[in-house]
Amino acid sequence: MKRNRISNNVIRRMPMYLRKLEDLLYHGVDRISSNELGSQMGLTPSQIRQDFSCFGEFGQQGYGYRVAELRDQIARILGMNEHYSVVIVGVGNLGHALMENMKFEEIGFKLTAAFDTSPEKIGTVVSGITVMDSANISPWLKENPADIAVLTVPKPVAKEMAGTVRDAGVRAIWNFTNTDLDFDKDDIQVENIHFSDSLLTLSYYLSSPGSKK
Amino acid sequence: MKRNRISNNVIRRMPMYLRKLEDLLYHGVDRISSNELGSQMGLTPSQIRQDFSCFGEFGQQGYGYRVAELRDQIARILGMNEHYSVVIVGVGNLGHALMENMKFEEIGFKLTAAFDTSPEKIGTVVSGITVMDSANISPWLKENPADIAVLTVPKPVAKEMAGTVRDAGVRAIWNFTNTDLDFDKDDIQVENIHFSDSLLTLSYYLSSPGSKK
Repeated sequence: MKRNRISNNVIRRMPMYLRKLEDLLYHGVDRISSNELGSQMGLTPSQIRQDFSCFGEFGQQGYGYRVAELRDQIARILGMNEHYSVVIVGVGNLGHALMENMKFEEIGFKLTAAFDTSPEKIGTVVSGITVMDSANISPWLKENPADIAVLTVPKPVAKEMAGTVRDAGVRAIWNFTNTDLDFDKDDIQVENIHFSDSLLTLSYYLSSPGSKK
Repeated sequence: MKRNRISNNVIRRMPMYLRKLEDLLYHGVDRISSNELGSQMGLTPSQIRQDFSCFGEFGQQGYGYRVAELRDQIARILGMNEHYSVVIVGVGNLGHALMENMKFEEIGFKLTAAFDTSPEKIGTVVSGITVMDSANISPWLKENPADIAVLTVPKPVAKEMAGTVRDAGVRAIWNFTNTDLDFDKDDIQVENIHFSDSLLTLSYYLSSPGSKK
């Protein structure tokens, strides 16, 4: 599978295709044309064909895409078959909400541990996981290597904790701290969640009566 | 200002420009060329000039952009001067985290109220806001019109609560419920947060050794 130079915008559309295809499967749709998929997703059919062609040939001229097959291929592209292990670093309200609401297993991840510094949190059980003391995170990670750390600590300790998990071998950080983690990209992958970007996009559409999403 | 037909991708880059410009201001940078801005943001200079040209002429040939001025113009484009009022619907862990961590005032919004159904939540104070009973949301919104509802209720009641706030005059929903709210777009603006899209993007880069963000 040729994976080089695929633009970040294409990558970011893949999870959206996945959600749409799962929705179609749920509604009993077996196959779909790029025209129909495009019209349901607000994309042109040619955009859709281009996106998928980055990863190989999925559809069939005049027949369209087999929904279940395409869904599985996209899931594989997104690494959902890798069963990456995930640890939560910071079980405040946000960490807690992610542990309770994110269906990590359903999308192919394994939630393996959670850490916090607060004595009231340590030892409590959230979604079947016993919260451990952040002081033990390095030795724990060395015994139990993890792929992804979800960083939900307060901003002032964000960089320090990010460095700690990287040094302990974590390969990717899902960063909710609103702090730029300026690692060398070869070192570790970082994906930032900026809630305000999304709110400001909404605000744009609200303030621009001519523009509808 | 011509605002029609600006692509959603351009709109979604605006908050990123805003963050970058605020960061530059914070570091004392007065002006910046599109070359330099591009290299710092991983965009081509021509992409940057094109993006801004959708909203008018901001830079000056051979001089670059005045950082503070450009920041203010983008803030205005994003509706940050409108001081939209925001209500939280659902003060579970996620609603609570947003109330505590989102600096609504700093980015030009007013957090005016929060609602929950749980007797343990009603009457508690979070970030200076006393949580009210969701049963009173319609009459309250009719007395105190709000622009944006942040929907952080459990999935099974998402559609019902979305309908309630829309009927009470709310103009936009920031939707954290992982539920498609299929309103007529002329009716109300909806911006969905899908955490899993972001995690799967990270997972893609993790599983594709050749690809770096």
